Amino acid sequence: MKRILIIGIGAGDPDHLTLQAAKAMARADVFFVLDKGEAKDDLIRLRRTLIEAHAEAPYRVVEAGDPERDRTAAAYGAAVDDWRSRRARICERLVQDELADGQTGAFLVWGDPGLYDSTLAIVEEILARGAVHFDYEVIPGISSVAALAARHRVSLTQVGRPVHVTTGRRLAEDGPTADDLVVMLDAHTAFAGLDGDFHIYWGAYVGTPDEILVEGPVPEVTDRIRDLRAEARHRKGWIMDTYLLRRLR
Amino acid sequence: MKRILIIGIGAGDPDHLTLQAAKAMARADVFFVLDKGEAKDDLIRLRRTLIEAHAEAPYRVVEAGDPERDRTAAAYGAAVDDWRSRRARICERLVQDELADGQTGAFLVWGDPGLYDSTLAIVEEILARGAVHFDYEVIPGISSVAALAARHRVSLTQVGRPVHVTTGRRLAEDGPTADDLVVMLDAHTAFAGLDGDFHIYWGAYVGTPDEILVEGPVPEVTDRIRDLRAEARHRKGWIMDTYLLRRLR
Repeated sequence: MKRILIIGIGAGDPDHLTLQAAKAMARADVFFVLDKGEAKDDLIRLRRTLIEAHAEAPYRVVEAGDPERDRTAAAYGAAVDDWRSRRARICERLVQDELADGQTGAFLVWGDPGLYDSTLAIVEEILARGAVHFDYEVIPGISSVAALAARHRVSLTQVGRPVHVTTGRRLAEDGPTADDLVVMLDAHTAFAGLDGDFHIYWGAYVGTPDEILVEGPVPEVTDRIRDLRAEARHRKGWIMDTYLLRRLR
Repeated sequence: MKRILIIGIGAGDPDHLTLQAAKAMARADVFFVLDKGEAKDDLIRLRRTLIEAHAEAPYRVVEAGDPERDRTAAAYGAAVDDWRSRRARICERLVQDELADGQTGAFLVWGDPGLYDSTLAIVEEILARGAVHFDYEVIPGISSVAALAARHRVSLTQVGRPVHVTTGRRLAEDGPTADDLVVMLDAHTAFAGLDGDFHIYWGAYVGTPDEILVEGPVPEVTDRIRDLRAEARHRKGWIMDTYLLRRLR
């Protein structure tokens, strides 16, 4: 039997790695790496550092091209499904050709595999296709949300009240659905046009040397976040940011 | 200057600890421990194991009684606020009397300090009272939510859709506010009476040797979860459980 480990490796600080994740990495014979090109060079470098620090020889790193996603598609869900399926076929081939029976393969996932990550769905899709069989295990990781809250020294939740975790796209469409909102995957600073008085705790590249943190009432800090965001995105070629919105009372 | 570390230590598996948390524990001179009595003996034992494994001598463990909370209070928020304030006064005294200038004190928090935990609010309250001054830092941890999702090998989120994190009390009052709901602090199996077709991913003592996992369509597994929950609660004297509800489509 082949074995796959889906390992959450935290939000960007190499010390976000859990002892469980470090031990899982030590068990892996093969690391599967699907790269997104040069734009995220520092993430690739960080992942390599983690592998070198925690993998135990002999191990192999197998790289494959990540399929391009149609980011212009009007139907977001369909575009993601298509991208995911192409990704699944690539991973299926990797597991088939590059992992021997009895070996353990690892996929390293930024943040937590349970939060807006496609690896679990890809693994389920491969199993459903039935061409290759394996057992798999998931190791949780520090999400960018937990990292953001810690860096801002703020709780995501208030006593007995909910927090909604959503996307920038949803926030733009649905507006604020709760007094406490975590927003991920927001390419268009959707917080800028919000109805209501909100405080924002914003962070980019949280946990890395490039970390930027801004907090304040939304109207007061919107321009600053927009400028910082545009400048950093231009300078680094990519950005990963997250924020908590809290309604002022 | 005194320094306080609020350290997330994960959901119950000692290997949930991050490298960052382990290093933070090694920096601490004093560990502050507010215990909830004998009922959670195994949690106290686990915390002691973590301290022994990661703290660096010389260090001290200072224990204090945790104030009782009025769990019968109709006004839940007020009861928590009162309990929190009494807790803050105890912690204030600990930081004042047991931590010297230049020393580092640590509060160890189960799960993640950003999710339904009072330690951050307590620290803010102590600082606001102004009797004692210190700097503080927060180290994120694996929440019981991330641990639950990993053990069930399920994603909390679906593509481009929100997940609402809420309490059992809120679920009973508000009903399901989203297709994907994480429920914490539910003493009364609020999922049992839900409108709509939901799949539940339930877990108790996740990450510990006592872990219990159940998943299935709510109507089919409700009785089993109720029975397992009652039996475990009776046997151990306490229970910590969490679940994800996902609307069937």
